[in-house]
Amino acid sequence: MPDILHRVGIKSSPEAVYKALTTIDGLSHWWTDETRGDSKVDGVVHFQFGERGFFDMKVLELAPGKRVLWQVVDGPAEWIGTQVAFDIRQEGEYTIILFKHEGWQEPIEFMHHCSTKWGVFLLSMKSLVETGRGAPYPNDVKIDDWN
Amino acid sequence: MPDILHRVGIKSSPEAVYKALTTIDGLSHWWTDETRGDSKVDGVVHFQFGERGFFDMKVLELAPGKRVLWQVVDGPAEWIGTQVAFDIRQEGEYTIILFKHEGWQEPIEFMHHCSTKWGVFLLSMKSLVETGRGAPYPNDVKIDDWN
Repeated sequence: MPDILHRVGIKSSPEAVYKALTTIDGLSHWWTDETRGDSKVDGVVHFQFGERGFFDMKVLELAPGKRVLWQVVDGPAEWIGTQVAFDIRQEGEYTIILFKHEGWQEPIEFMHHCSTKWGVFLLSMKSLVETGRGAPYPNDVKIDDWN
Repeated sequence: MPDILHRVGIKSSPEAVYKALTTIDGLSHWWTDETRGDSKVDGVVHFQFGERGFFDMKVLELAPGKRVLWQVVDGPAEWIGTQVAFDIRQEGEYTIILFKHEGWQEPIEFMHHCSTKWGVFLLSMKSLVETGRGAPYPNDVKIDDWN
């Protein structure tokens, strides 16, 4: 089954990156400004994108400074049951994130869109952690007619 | 085998996008400014990224306004033999590009990097066609310690 993969390097500490991935405040400053819920293990975080839709992510794993794993429990049908993993490690002056969104049934056109869009949001996180300013929805970089 | 997938929508005609994908001038304004070679079918285009490396792409298919297919004939070992496809169609005021880089043997860390970087360069192409100004290497968006 096809996966979405990305690699981003952030000039900061694993702790700062982990904070951006695991707090409602952090998440709301790089993915969507309408983020709420419980970001602890077994909690569910709700990511709303205006009237366009939403994702509900159950937090499956949290390893401080090392790994975050979510499972999609509600949202677009093609996303439900898929998993989103962020593996983090230090490499010189960078913190490297290896990103994987796995469990897609088919490489549909929506998956192509989500792949590009994940890249855009990961670079928003890089900007947030490095400069204090990300570009979360609704001020995210638009990539196509699906936004 | 895993593929790299992307979807970008460009507010312009399929002909303008096709030109950016199939002329040395177009390619040199969104991917790398050191682009040379023969961009016709059976030709090889050489994409140089300073001292970092290069890709040699043999042009396998050209369907004007519809599809471009390249095969990697020289460059990083993991890229050789892989194929890069751009499928183009009009959708309202957008030209949609479905991108696929297929034939990777394994989902190695370098593949994660290339996935993010392809997204960055496709958005550079979008900017080039929409505004006349892309961000090709060496002025591309840097994503990690591998650039």
